[in-house]
Amino acid sequence: MLQITMIGAGNLAWHLAQALDAADCRVVQVYSRKLLNAKALASKLYDAESTDSLDFSESESDLFLLAVRDQAFAEVIPKLQLPENAIIAHTSGTQELAVLKNLSKAHGVFYPLQTFSKARKINFKKIHFCLEASNENTLDFLAEIADSLSKNIYQVSSADRRALHIAAVFACNFTNHLFTISKEILAKNDLEFEMLKPLIEETIEKAMNQAPEQSQTGPAVRGDQQTIEAHLQYLRKNTSFEKVYEALSTSIRKYYHV
Amino acid sequence: MLQITMIGAGNLAWHLAQALDAADCRVVQVYSRKLLNAKALASKLYDAESTDSLDFSESESDLFLLAVRDQAFAEVIPKLQLPENAIIAHTSGTQELAVLKNLSKAHGVFYPLQTFSKARKINFKKIHFCLEASNENTLDFLAEIADSLSKNIYQVSSADRRALHIAAVFACNFTNHLFTISKEILAKNDLEFEMLKPLIEETIEKAMNQAPEQSQTGPAVRGDQQTIEAHLQYLRKNTSFEKVYEALSTSIRKYYHV
Repeated sequence: MLQITMIGAGNLAWHLAQALDAADCRVVQVYSRKLLNAKALASKLYDAESTDSLDFSESESDLFLLAVRDQAFAEVIPKLQLPENAIIAHTSGTQELAVLKNLSKAHGVFYPLQTFSKARKINFKKIHFCLEASNENTLDFLAEIADSLSKNIYQVSSADRRALHIAAVFACNFTNHLFTISKEILAKNDLEFEMLKPLIEETIEKAMNQAPEQSQTGPAVRGDQQTIEAHLQYLRKNTSFEKVYEALSTSIRKYYHV
Repeated sequence: MLQITMIGAGNLAWHLAQALDAADCRVVQVYSRKLLNAKALASKLYDAESTDSLDFSESESDLFLLAVRDQAFAEVIPKLQLPENAIIAHTSGTQELAVLKNLSKAHGVFYPLQTFSKARKINFKKIHFCLEASNENTLDFLAEIADSLSKNIYQVSSADRRALHIAAVFACNFTNHLFTISKEILAKNDLEFEMLKPLIEETIEKAMNQAPEQSQTGPAVRGDQQTIEAHLQYLRKNTSFEKVYEALSTSIRKYYHV
């Protein structure tokens, strides 16, 4: 059975390690800067040890997965000590493949295009994996591992992965914040966010089945300046969300030339 | 059978008239400023005449539904001629109940909280109807009609309806535009919007089942200025969406104090 070292114990590492452990691999080591976090994840795995040391020169793992947050890359990578001929891959949407080039000839990217929260179980079968590698063998090796989790596997260059990640920030992170804003506005009037559920479901279905650029509705695309002004006035008075409203309305009007 | 006059033939009127006609009512007249539009909708109905005149003083309809766009309210309302004791309701999320007060004592709001496109069939059973009226009888009457379409009926004040509409703009109109932006970014790299589908589905499910304010992920909530800068640089160079990115990232950081 393939042995994997998971470097990181955050949201992504948390779910990925358990999914790999439940598939055809064994995560045998978990690193975190905070040993307690490594232990918490290791305790969820079949037989893993935890560590706060980045010296893996004696490790026999077949794959080292670097799943720390982007901000930690610059600190962690220079300290990492790997055995000779190690295979290492990172899981970031943002970082170039080349950031790993000094660690090993066999390096790659193993990026699951998904949003992870610790408390929420993820169905890996539905995840799209974006892979990239320094050579064909490493790519095949990563594809084999991804294949044990999902059938949606793509070879994606660093440039394409960056575009994907930015697109995902818009479609996922920013969308979620819009829901938060929406909920806050409703809460001020003692209205439930639940009331918008059918509307949100229809919005998503329409965007998916009919193309979002053809599904735009609302005051901005109608060029309804009077409603926009009334909304901005309300938002200025009651919330701090008027800049978001303004930026999105402007962008819609520009996009549709209204 | 209740007889209804539909004033307007846009997206909302288009679906609402057909849904009413298929339920316990008959839409017997359709008005549009452009007679051709009125005819197009009337042709979809059981037995409706079409008109471009706002003189309904001889009409025997039980209800007049004003479903024109908000911008047309100021022009249409002064020209409207209704029979004595007519009941009139508008379908706008934005307009006050009081805009109808000079037309009839019995006036109300019949607002379906949904996004409508002509080409796409809508399941009215899932729509939340927000009602408001000048008196109890009118409210009961509107509730009876709404009840023939959906079991989700709410009595909502003009102030609450305004908040709902603004919240809907964020959760629906703006969300859809984020998907458009996302798709454009991917298209520049010949990547399919479909690739983000599992991510979008998970985002929605998480927001609905777990509360959006607790589900926020991404560079902004992590305070990852390096990634934010890299994304902005990319957007400035390749698109015109950097202002939207900036406004949303700033709002997220402010909301979570990062």
